[in-house]
Amino acid sequence: MKIKVNQKDLAKHISIAQKGISSRTTLQILDGILLEAHKDKLKLTGTDLEISIETYVNCEIEREGSIVVNSRIFGDIIKKLPDASIYIDVDNNNINIKCENSEFNILGNSSKEYPDLPIVLEHTTFQLPNDLFKSAIRQTVFATTQDETRPSLTGVLFEIIDSNISFVALDGYRLALRKLPIQSDVEIKIIIPGRALNEINKIVEDNESNMEIAAAPGHVVFNIGDTIVYSRLLEGQFFNYKEIIRKDHKTSAIVNKKAFQDSLERASLLAKEEKANLVKLSIIDGQILIKSNSEIGNVNEMIMAQASGENINIAFNSRYILEGIKVIDAEEIKLNFMGSLNPCIIKPLQDENYTYLVLPVRLAQDDF
Amino acid sequence: MKIKVNQKDLAKHISIAQKGISSRTTLQILDGILLEAHKDKLKLTGTDLEISIETYVNCEIEREGSIVVNSRIFGDIIKKLPDASIYIDVDNNNINIKCENSEFNILGNSSKEYPDLPIVLEHTTFQLPNDLFKSAIRQTVFATTQDETRPSLTGVLFEIIDSNISFVALDGYRLALRKLPIQSDVEIKIIIPGRALNEINKIVEDNESNMEIAAAPGHVVFNIGDTIVYSRLLEGQFFNYKEIIRKDHKTSAIVNKKAFQDSLERASLLAKEEKANLVKLSIIDGQILIKSNSEIGNVNEMIMAQASGENINIAFNSRYILEGIKVIDAEEIKLNFMGSLNPCIIKPLQDENYTYLVLPVRLAQDDF
Repeated sequence: MKIKVNQKDLAKHISIAQKGISSRTTLQILDGILLEAHKDKLKLTGTDLEISIETYVNCEIEREGSIVVNSRIFGDIIKKLPDASIYIDVDNNNINIKCENSEFNILGNSSKEYPDLPIVLEHTTFQLPNDLFKSAIRQTVFATTQDETRPSLTGVLFEIIDSNISFVALDGYRLALRKLPIQSDVEIKIIIPGRALNEINKIVEDNESNMEIAAAPGHVVFNIGDTIVYSRLLEGQFFNYKEIIRKDHKTSAIVNKKAFQDSLERASLLAKEEKANLVKLSIIDGQILIKSNSEIGNVNEMIMAQASGENINIAFNSRYILEGIKVIDAEEIKLNFMGSLNPCIIKPLQDENYTYLVLPVRLAQDDF
Repeated sequence: MKIKVNQKDLAKHISIAQKGISSRTTLQILDGILLEAHKDKLKLTGTDLEISIETYVNCEIEREGSIVVNSRIFGDIIKKLPDASIYIDVDNNNINIKCENSEFNILGNSSKEYPDLPIVLEHTTFQLPNDLFKSAIRQTVFATTQDETRPSLTGVLFEIIDSNISFVALDGYRLALRKLPIQSDVEIKIIIPGRALNEINKIVEDNESNMEIAAAPGHVVFNIGDTIVYSRLLEGQFFNYKEIIRKDHKTSAIVNKKAFQDSLERASLLAKEEKANLVKLSIIDGQILIKSNSEIGNVNEMIMAQASGENINIAFNSRYILEGIKVIDAEEIKLNFMGSLNPCIIKPLQDENYTYLVLPVRLAQDDF
């Protein structure tokens, strides 16, 4: 393999391929990036066998070929080279890299040692605008669980029915649901690992171009411009989430999102971990009072709200309620309550496409 | 104590006082900031008993008094409050903090438990412009040692003779010397701990105002606008550094600083820690060749230089040579060599006020 490639382009695509590589891998070959030069393109591949990332960069090819190169060392070298043409010449396992007055020789591994990646054949495809995909992932993936004993909840459910796609994540304490209209008549229901979605979100640019998603048995493929991401799907049944999102409520309050978030953040300064980050909310006569206390001291916050219905005292883990509010892009939000033992449902005002549901912490009414 | 103070001002001065506090303290009271309200000023003090920082913020005082408050919690609360007036009311050890619709109550400690700070009486003072002080510290403090068994080398020597101040740091492998003319006829020679200088450098703003430095037996006091920093001095004799800075040389080279730094940085990618970060330099016929190799591979770099004198092969620990070059603010630098066993002396071109000296690593000439 012998090629000429632009330094900036190569550095960018190395950092994309590196997102497929796990720092915890025990297989030495998986620390590497597979380089394959073929037909005016250099293809870079990184994988941890759960997800695989293939990305293509334009280059001039004098001799086609392939090699596996240690991802960290190759990335560090290319990043430090000047913004100029880089010449890469592979002879057996020796990789010669030249750029202006710099020359590196490093040892690679034969591409024959690199694992074969899955070939995805039968599949159902649909398209999504990059920016909407990014915001949907940002608004849901944080609510997945880290608990590997409940594997299906470590991912986000993608469900398409009736030209609508729902993204759903939940961990037993809270649920995040984002809906989008979609121009497709396919019907699918797949669970995509949170780690894959986090890495894809770093690769996808925030613009209105479309990405193509292809679902196949056991796998999903994201086609993002010059990059293709493969991920295994999570197996098992997803929790039947629709039943817990109730439409009725006994108390409702509309508040300024930033003021509410700031007050919760201050209250949570004293809501120490050992007390489950406990913050207490009281909605009384058009005001929301937020209280928290620990052995360090106590805090009282008051915010004006447009409230209706019964007064209510309810307690939450401040982390769970805050994480959902932070990802809402709206000036005002609406909180719906059904007594102090049922979940609180939070939505952006006048927007039915995002729903965040958080379970309360049970407290005796005397404790408020 | 009962005061009214602006949130932004208070947050800024808390972060200054916090720089005096060590995260490793074993005395609980030293986790605290001492607040003292007196004559239209709130004084905040943080100390680890090695350095002490006192900083003053304007406030309206309704009742004078003092209290010690946990630095982290107090800082987090004040930072999160809105940009408005904060009312602090201390009753016994309870601290009540109000700001708009937020109210905190936290427990403090009596100021009687706070240690007395040294009172510095007899002293010799001199002044330095903030910006020159900052650059002199940045160019020297990194060359102090972390080795506590050689305490005097953990600090920077401040030496004033004949209206010149020298800042000197060395660790046995390299030496950094910065000189400044100074309008003062005092003569002093003191060693100031590196940690104190690093913290002061974070507090001092990069402008042409003057700071006042007062040296007293065992102590030094920095007067920086509304902040005063006390530090213990380091005892013991400083290494007699003047003898090792030779004026004569057998090889000399002038190079572009950025090109030389970039090449060294690339070469050091392969100069692994276990081989003392070894990089080899050869100055031959107007070119500098830089080489490095390890079990990963090898690298060759070439840079054009204006060289004179004998050709030379010499090896360095790349970290030591790079750290000195990085802090030089000049387009071109001059390297002087006296054979491959003597130190290399590096200076900005046409500037005698900064000198960096680095010892070579001894290698057989066959190894080049």
